[in-house]
Amino acid sequence: MKHVTTVEELRQALGRLKRPIGFVPTMGFLHAGHISLVELARKQSKSVVASIFVNPSQFGPDEDLEAYPRDLPRDQALLKKAGVDLLWLPTPNVIYPPDFQTWVEVEEVTQMLEGAQRPGHFRGVTTVVAKLFNAVQPDTAYFGQKDAQQVAVIRQMVRDLNFAIDIAVGETIREEDGLAMSSRNSYLNAEERQAATILHKTLEVGKQAYEVGERDAQKLRELMREMIDTEPLAIAQYVSCAHPGSLKELDQITEGALLSMAVYLGKTRLIDNVVLSEV
Amino acid sequence: MKHVTTVEELRQALGRLKRPIGFVPTMGFLHAGHISLVELARKQSKSVVASIFVNPSQFGPDEDLEAYPRDLPRDQALLKKAGVDLLWLPTPNVIYPPDFQTWVEVEEVTQMLEGAQRPGHFRGVTTVVAKLFNAVQPDTAYFGQKDAQQVAVIRQMVRDLNFAIDIAVGETIREEDGLAMSSRNSYLNAEERQAATILHKTLEVGKQAYEVGERDAQKLRELMREMIDTEPLAIAQYVSCAHPGSLKELDQITEGALLSMAVYLGKTRLIDNVVLSEV
Repeated sequence: MKHVTTVEELRQALGRLKRPIGFVPTMGFLHAGHISLVELARKQSKSVVASIFVNPSQFGPDEDLEAYPRDLPRDQALLKKAGVDLLWLPTPNVIYPPDFQTWVEVEEVTQMLEGAQRPGHFRGVTTVVAKLFNAVQPDTAYFGQKDAQQVAVIRQMVRDLNFAIDIAVGETIREEDGLAMSSRNSYLNAEERQAATILHKTLEVGKQAYEVGERDAQKLRELMREMIDTEPLAIAQYVSCAHPGSLKELDQITEGALLSMAVYLGKTRLIDNVVLSEV
Repeated sequence: MKHVTTVEELRQALGRLKRPIGFVPTMGFLHAGHISLVELARKQSKSVVASIFVNPSQFGPDEDLEAYPRDLPRDQALLKKAGVDLLWLPTPNVIYPPDFQTWVEVEEVTQMLEGAQRPGHFRGVTTVVAKLFNAVQPDTAYFGQKDAQQVAVIRQMVRDLNFAIDIAVGETIREEDGLAMSSRNSYLNAEERQAATILHKTLEVGKQAYEVGERDAQKLRELMREMIDTEPLAIAQYVSCAHPGSLKELDQITEGALLSMAVYLGKTRLIDNVVLSEV
C-alpha cells in the first residue's frame, strides 16, 4: 500500500491505478465499519483508494476536534491488510492552504437532525468531500449508513453538482450487543458503554412497532423517547421518523422511512438509525 | 458538430471525443471574443466542447435575464464554423432541477468590484461553472480576460476545490474603435455606442500614466474618473486599480495590477479592464 500527502503526489499515484477506482474517505481511528467499506470497494472496483483526514471545518467550536481519537500506525496496518492500494494522508495545509475561501453548501437537507444540532457541520463535510472527489476522481465512493444524513447530503451534492461518481452505502456494523461502531465509542466509560446499547434497543422498539402496524410517526417518536428515558444515563437530543431523501419529519410513516436519533451518554454524543421496510 | 441537451447525452458524446478536451462555456449571443476562445481551444486540444446556457442564478432580480440577447441559430453556425466538436445546450431544468439546493461560494475575491455591485452574481457563476466542469470534465477551460474578476474567482475555485482542470484566458477582443466585445453592446443605441469608447480610452489614459511613471494608485483612479466624466453619456460605477489575484485596491501600483471599471451608458452597464505591465 502506497501512501501520499500532497495532491500532486496523489495524482501521480492515481495515474498508475487500474480503473474502476473505489474510494473510502475516513477520519481515521478505523473500526470494522470502515473496513467493511473497504471490502465492499474491493469487490466492486479494480483499485481501492482510502483517505484519512480529520476535517477541522466539520467540527463546531465547542466540538471534539482536538480530542478526536487518532491512531495512524494502527489505521495504516488495518487498511493495508484490507487491501487498500493507495492511502492519501493530506495535512490540514494541503486541504486548507492559507488563502482557502471556497465552500460547497447543500441548503435544505442539511437543515434538520444533525444539521440543526451542529451548525456548519455539513458545510464542512460537503466542502471537504467535494475536494476529495475532485482530487481522487473515483468511479465510486463509499460511505456508511450510520451517518444517514451525511449520505443524503452527499447524494444531493453529487446530483446537484453533476459529479460523475456513484455513491455506495455500506450497512451499519454493530458490536455484539448492537451498539453501532463509531470512533467516538472510545470516549465512553464502562458504565456509559453499557448504557449506550439503549440506542440500538430503541431503534428495535420503533422497528417492531412499525412491523406490527404502527403508521403514526408521532406515536413512534414518542414511543422511542420513552424507551430512551428508561436509561438514566442517556439523554435524547433528537428522535426522528423522517422521509429518507428529504429528511423531513413524517406524519404518516411510509416504506423506507428513516428512524434516527442523537443521544448523549455523559459528554459523548452518539447517533444511530434504521430504515423501516415491510417484512 | 453534434449537439446535446441532457447530462446523460453529454457524457455519452464525450466518451467518443479524443483527449485532451478544451471547453468553452458561454451564455450565447456569440461575438469574436467567444470565437477567439474556441480558436485557442482548437490549437491546444484534440477536441473542443462548447456550452450555451444563460444562467439565471448569476443575474440579480433587477438585472437583464429576460432581456439578455439570444440567437441560437446564429450561435450554432458560428461554433460549427469555428470547429467545435460538441455543443451542450442544457435547458434550465437540466441545470436546476426542482429540488436543486447546492451552491459553490468563493468568499473573498468575490466581495469587491463586480461582486460588490452584483450581490449573488459570483455565487451563480461558480455554482454553474462547477456543474459544467463536473459534467464536461475538460482538460482545459477557456475564459475571456474581459471578465477579469470572473477569471480570478474561477481560478480561486479551481485551486480551492482541487478541480483537475487548467484555466486558460483569452485576451479581450475589441471593435475597431477599441470597445471591448460584449453581448451587452447590442443594448446600446447609436449615441451610446459612440460614447462607449470612453471605457477603452480611459484605460489607455491610465495605462499611459503608468508607463510614464505614475505609481500612486489613488491618483490613477482619480485620473480615470476624470476621463470618464468628460463623456456626458457615461456614468462610472466603479474605477479600480487592484492586485490581479486578490483584487484588493492598491495604494502603490505594482507590475501586473488590474485597471478595471464598470460604466453606465444609459441603462446599459459595461465593464472593461487592462493589465499594467512594464513596457
